[in-house]
Amino acid sequence: MDTLHTTRLNHLCQELTRDGLSQMIICDPLSIWYFTGVRVSPGERLYALYVNTNGNHKLILNRLFTVPHTGLTEIWMSDTDDGMEILAAEVDGTADMGIDKNWPARFLLALMEKHPDVRYQNASCCVDRIRAIKDSDERDKMRAASRINDACMEKASAFLKEGKTEKEVAAYIDHLYQEAGCEGNSFPTIVSYGAHAADPHHEPDDTPLKAGDCIVIDMGCIKDGYCSDMTRTFFCQAADEKYAAIHDLVREANEKAESIIRPGVRFCDIDRTAREHIAAGGYGEYFTHRLGHSIGLEDHEFGDVSSVNTDCVQAGMTFSIEPGVYLPGKFGVRVEDLVFVTEDGCEILNQVEKKWRIV
Amino acid sequence: MDTLHTTRLNHLCQELTRDGLSQMIICDPLSIWYFTGVRVSPGERLYALYVNTNGNHKLILNRLFTVPHTGLTEIWMSDTDDGMEILAAEVDGTADMGIDKNWPARFLLALMEKHPDVRYQNASCCVDRIRAIKDSDERDKMRAASRINDACMEKASAFLKEGKTEKEVAAYIDHLYQEAGCEGNSFPTIVSYGAHAADPHHEPDDTPLKAGDCIVIDMGCIKDGYCSDMTRTFFCQAADEKYAAIHDLVREANEKAESIIRPGVRFCDIDRTAREHIAAGGYGEYFTHRLGHSIGLEDHEFGDVSSVNTDCVQAGMTFSIEPGVYLPGKFGVRVEDLVFVTEDGCEILNQVEKKWRIV
Repeated sequence: MDTLHTTRLNHLCQELTRDGLSQMIICDPLSIWYFTGVRVSPGERLYALYVNTNGNHKLILNRLFTVPHTGLTEIWMSDTDDGMEILAAEVDGTADMGIDKNWPARFLLALMEKHPDVRYQNASCCVDRIRAIKDSDERDKMRAASRINDACMEKASAFLKEGKTEKEVAAYIDHLYQEAGCEGNSFPTIVSYGAHAADPHHEPDDTPLKAGDCIVIDMGCIKDGYCSDMTRTFFCQAADEKYAAIHDLVREANEKAESIIRPGVRFCDIDRTAREHIAAGGYGEYFTHRLGHSIGLEDHEFGDVSSVNTDCVQAGMTFSIEPGVYLPGKFGVRVEDLVFVTEDGCEILNQVEKKWRIV
Repeated sequence: MDTLHTTRLNHLCQELTRDGLSQMIICDPLSIWYFTGVRVSPGERLYALYVNTNGNHKLILNRLFTVPHTGLTEIWMSDTDDGMEILAAEVDGTADMGIDKNWPARFLLALMEKHPDVRYQNASCCVDRIRAIKDSDERDKMRAASRINDACMEKASAFLKEGKTEKEVAAYIDHLYQEAGCEGNSFPTIVSYGAHAADPHHEPDDTPLKAGDCIVIDMGCIKDGYCSDMTRTFFCQAADEKYAAIHDLVREANEKAESIIRPGVRFCDIDRTAREHIAAGGYGEYFTHRLGHSIGLEDHEFGDVSSVNTDCVQAGMTFSIEPGVYLPGKFGVRVEDLVFVTEDGCEILNQVEKKWRIV
């Protein structure tokens, strides 16, 4: 096992010990990749990293998976084996058990039946605390993914034209990501015209672009395992004065929030800064979601920028700042960047002009 | 609530009662769609259908979701609410609780903490038994998806040419699906040249096609919510005699297995029929996976065609028959169709010639 992964696993053991645990089952393929360098798409099959603070970690694998040699103990099974019987025999049936927050109930309930006296608890916070702080190599990958996203947003804006459908624009963006050598999208590309933009999660459809529409594009790619995510707004041929003013208000909220980010500031205070600005402009009730979410190997990682998260920002954290205003049936707008927290402030990973533009 | 969904929910209540349960939490968005017509992509947010055999079903929703009116009781929450507190108050804290096999541990463990005296059990078998039997409308959609898959496989075979990389061929297939109006892929398209085909789950890379290579293409699309899935093999310019003979053996195994499918036959006997034919040909140890899997709204649904599944086939079931032989580091081959079980046999949903072809 190489130094990077050994260090990460040792760090995890410290976190588990800090939470009073000696063992944990991790099932998230991205977390297993993060801690071991092994990457598998298990589908519905059992796949797990068993971590024990005594150092006897084990990878639970199906013979259909192809994995590099890691130096970890490997426990192999076939589709016709009782996988949970095999796993149950490998864990410590006398100690509390940390469980991955995403472990499907079919596995957890089966393990509980085999070890009914063990106390089970969600221990993903131990994993999340480590994954939340990006090292310099991860920071470079986050930067690179956002640089690609910037370039693709510029190309997408040049592609916008009256008559082009939302689906066509989204397909073009996905094609740009492929050309740029990305592994895929961080999430399904959102392209919303006019009233569609009032739904923050609108799915692109066959609606053609027409003069006067706003165009909200929320897009992100995955490059070398790391995600980007950005939203910008355009207007087709002309901008409605009222809507343009709402966009300015939301952009200012984005900029105000970003200006206070530095280690020690609470997430809820960043959220409040943006929310108060939008409320002062008269649109508070139309900003219907949290200000942002952490990001890295996944588009949404643990730790959000919301009114209820009183945790403090730390250097190395990476998250989105994405205030929005949504007028049901009429209009919607969102301005989103990713930020990387530095020792004394933050680096904004997106460079595309934030102000609305006419296309 | 319309007749279709009311009927399905009533059917589910019968299945729960049969298993001694009065309530269940369903989280799978596709199952919720199947039972209610509501389709949401919840991401990491809490989203559930609570089913009670007393008829008081409830949809647990986040305000960010956009849903049509269903007539079901709707329980709404925001990102800043304690969703599990809200859900726990809506369920019956005095009765056994059926749980969706895929419910993430973070929700299940939180509910267990709030209702520690309730007995929890995986009740997805009740859902699976219903979803496994396709009605005539579902059968037509399965047929339509496979018809598209047939047409795209023919076009893909015409696209194969020395020098084309695996990634290029896979991207072309995905593009064909888009053109055909599909919602997406059933699973990431597999294109494997030569020795890559020895890994049944190979991911397409930048390897160019060269003369003499075998080409294994495993592909499927989603159309109107239903999945297709098929594998065919080609050879570039010339077929190695030994490898062509292995393909013939595997094709015969596929055909023999398909020939015995009818209601009442056990899945394990279908698996055995294919496995014995390949073993008789001398390659039994290289057929390393189950013979097939059920399919419908998802590419892999409950119920596999394997040596350990002693269930009997029923009319309306739909699954794959996909024997394969994999020679590590050298060669691999698989022949896969979907079949729909009729009253007295089965309908093979794929029409593309099964025999290997030169391209």
